Amino acid sequence: MTAAVIRMLDDERLRPAAARVRPDVDPDEVIARVAWSVLVEPGDGVAGTLIAEHGARRALQMAVGESSLLAPGSLGSQQLSEALARWRPRARAQAVVDAMASCADIGGRLLLPGDELWPAGLDDLGVHGPLVLWARGDLRACAGPATVSIVGARAATGYGESVAAELAGDLAASGVVVISGGAYGIDGAAHRAALGAGGTTIAFLAGGMDRAYPAGHQQLFDRIRARGAVLSEVPCGSAPTKWRFLQRNRLIAAAGMATVVVEAGWRSGSLNTAGHAAALGRPLGAVPGPVSSAASAGCHRLLREYDAVCVTSAQDVRELWDDVVAEPVPTESISPDQIRLLDALSGRTPRDAAEIARLSGLDASRVRSLLGLLGLDGTVEQVRDGWRRTS
Amino acid sequence: MTAAVIRMLDDERLRPAAARVRPDVDPDEVIARVAWSVLVEPGDGVAGTLIAEHGARRALQMAVGESSLLAPGSLGSQQLSEALARWRPRARAQAVVDAMASCADIGGRLLLPGDELWPAGLDDLGVHGPLVLWARGDLRACAGPATVSIVGARAATGYGESVAAELAGDLAASGVVVISGGAYGIDGAAHRAALGAGGTTIAFLAGGMDRAYPAGHQQLFDRIRARGAVLSEVPCGSAPTKWRFLQRNRLIAAAGMATVVVEAGWRSGSLNTAGHAAALGRPLGAVPGPVSSAASAGCHRLLREYDAVCVTSAQDVRELWDDVVAEPVPTESISPDQIRLLDALSGRTPRDAAEIARLSGLDASRVRSLLGLLGLDGTVEQVRDGWRRTS
Repeated sequence: MTAAVIRMLDDERLRPAAARVRPDVDPDEVIARVAWSVLVEPGDGVAGTLIAEHGARRALQMAVGESSLLAPGSLGSQQLSEALARWRPRARAQAVVDAMASCADIGGRLLLPGDELWPAGLDDLGVHGPLVLWARGDLRACAGPATVSIVGARAATGYGESVAAELAGDLAASGVVVISGGAYGIDGAAHRAALGAGGTTIAFLAGGMDRAYPAGHQQLFDRIRARGAVLSEVPCGSAPTKWRFLQRNRLIAAAGMATVVVEAGWRSGSLNTAGHAAALGRPLGAVPGPVSSAASAGCHRLLREYDAVCVTSAQDVRELWDDVVAEPVPTESISPDQIRLLDALSGRTPRDAAEIARLSGLDASRVRSLLGLLGLDGTVEQVRDGWRRTS
Repeated sequence: MTAAVIRMLDDERLRPAAARVRPDVDPDEVIARVAWSVLVEPGDGVAGTLIAEHGARRALQMAVGESSLLAPGSLGSQQLSEALARWRPRARAQAVVDAMASCADIGGRLLLPGDELWPAGLDDLGVHGPLVLWARGDLRACAGPATVSIVGARAATGYGESVAAELAGDLAASGVVVISGGAYGIDGAAHRAALGAGGTTIAFLAGGMDRAYPAGHQQLFDRIRARGAVLSEVPCGSAPTKWRFLQRNRLIAAAGMATVVVEAGWRSGSLNTAGHAAALGRPLGAVPGPVSSAASAGCHRLLREYDAVCVTSAQDVRELWDDVVAEPVPTESISPDQIRLLDALSGRTPRDAAEIARLSGLDASRVRSLLGLLGLDGTVEQVRDGWRRTS
């Protein structure tokens, strides 16, 4: 296999294909990154470590070239040899050419780490971050100054979809890029509301960005591309497998400045996204709902067990990243003595200060000073036979 | 005034009246405590401190007897003289006699701190605790081994009342004494459900226990007395003033092992109870509801800003005091590699190990061992042309 693998990098179709997706970048770098995107499943930390330590090109030569080139680095030799055994069955030049060509054919673009438009939050994933992003749409959305991930159950209720739409619409209207996963239910409601508010939205897909998944969202994805972006770390043609869904969730969690779960069943996949957000130290919000609603059970679980913040409005969501100090518990704006004094006053029968002192349990001089104070703002009034409340 | 004040304690009607409410206790102690209950408004920390330092009788002699008897103790002289000016307008023997007689007339009883049936949690209020409790009903309820305070909005929704009833009914059925404030809405629903479940419930009133407040709950209070208790720290005939409502809330918070707010508006009085519970270090729960419901806004505020625990079931409430360790976030019970392997298998078309390795991005030997493992539990099966999923 080694010889075939080495030949993979010499395939003459690679450079023209690379020029189609990124004419502005050294083709060897493009080819190496794309090859990695073809070789590994999302979140492969061994590949990420190798690339971080040696760069994509040299790491690729190590991985699919001569084994003897492999420097131990921070990886154990067993870890490395297991990884090579994983990667090599996929080492075909055709797959790398196809990945680039199919992207170019549908007008897509390749984003690379370090690009100006590379979503900054993804860097926090470290060696588990995506190696490339396949992208379609208006990629300026990827560099949005403020981003929020709004996710939730596919089996959402009307309540959940309406709250998702309210939050996403409000936030998008104020310039926040709304990130979600393009699924039915909460995701779709969030994307749609962001677009409806004239804002920008990003969908991270688990499969290739050439496939509408779910198929019923083909039109929605078309609309997202017109004013935002559809992104995936796996090449066109890749199926949205369960593993890729779980890994896709880490991209959603990392790309948003905060993650909000609107509705989620007790074991919803959205809790996986929430777990990623928490692991990354991203603020995590959960929208409450009726305790009788199974679609809110996961949100209540996040509130109860995972210290999610209860969010009920777009303003609450903004405060997730604004780190606003909580206001004090509402207390009476009038003093305890004032309350007691007012308790002792009637709106009809005037009472004299001595009577008010006895009724309120306040001493007479305190009563007089309070009456004076409350008389100033019109809360009490003095009449011929004493004092009474005005309201 | 001093002479009149001293004479107050010599009134010959005091001892017979004291014997009617507590024949088993030294009448001087009963008279002193009741006199304090008449002199002060609830939560008077100066009175509490004086009593803690000198005992009720001597403190009373200091307060309404000769001023020269006053020992400075931990109170400042200005604080003391202000307090005397508050208390003395109420120093009438008639009021003390009336307090005891009116209690006895309606079959009530007087509870004193240290009594076996004195609700233990109230001691945590320290010098702000009640000086006596006027009580009616089956007072064994006061010594319940487990107690929970369930409170909320008077302007409750059907949703809130139904959740309150579910929580209170379930908890009461398992022997937990349900404490509330006897108001319309959530309070009433909690009391009723506790009774309906054959359990025990306690209502703390803001006014005298001889008055049904609200009047529409007269029948409910009758039912509570049959199997639980109606308690108040102010004597019969006392009006339920706003101050007394606010102070009553501290009794509810202190008497329960935990406080649960079921529904509350943004500035509901229930938040005052919640604040007392938090100040006392009592676990605080809040029931979530639709974000669109104004009646849940206060609960969401407690969750969001005051670290209340999200409770959705009676079991959640029990865990408030059981201090149960949270379970880990739900994760896949099968390993990441198993997910990837299963993603690469079809339920119809059999695939050989090499094909599965390529599709899954796992190495061939790992694929073989996983197939063996999953074959054992029947998740995959080997057929003539390879492997496939069984489900």
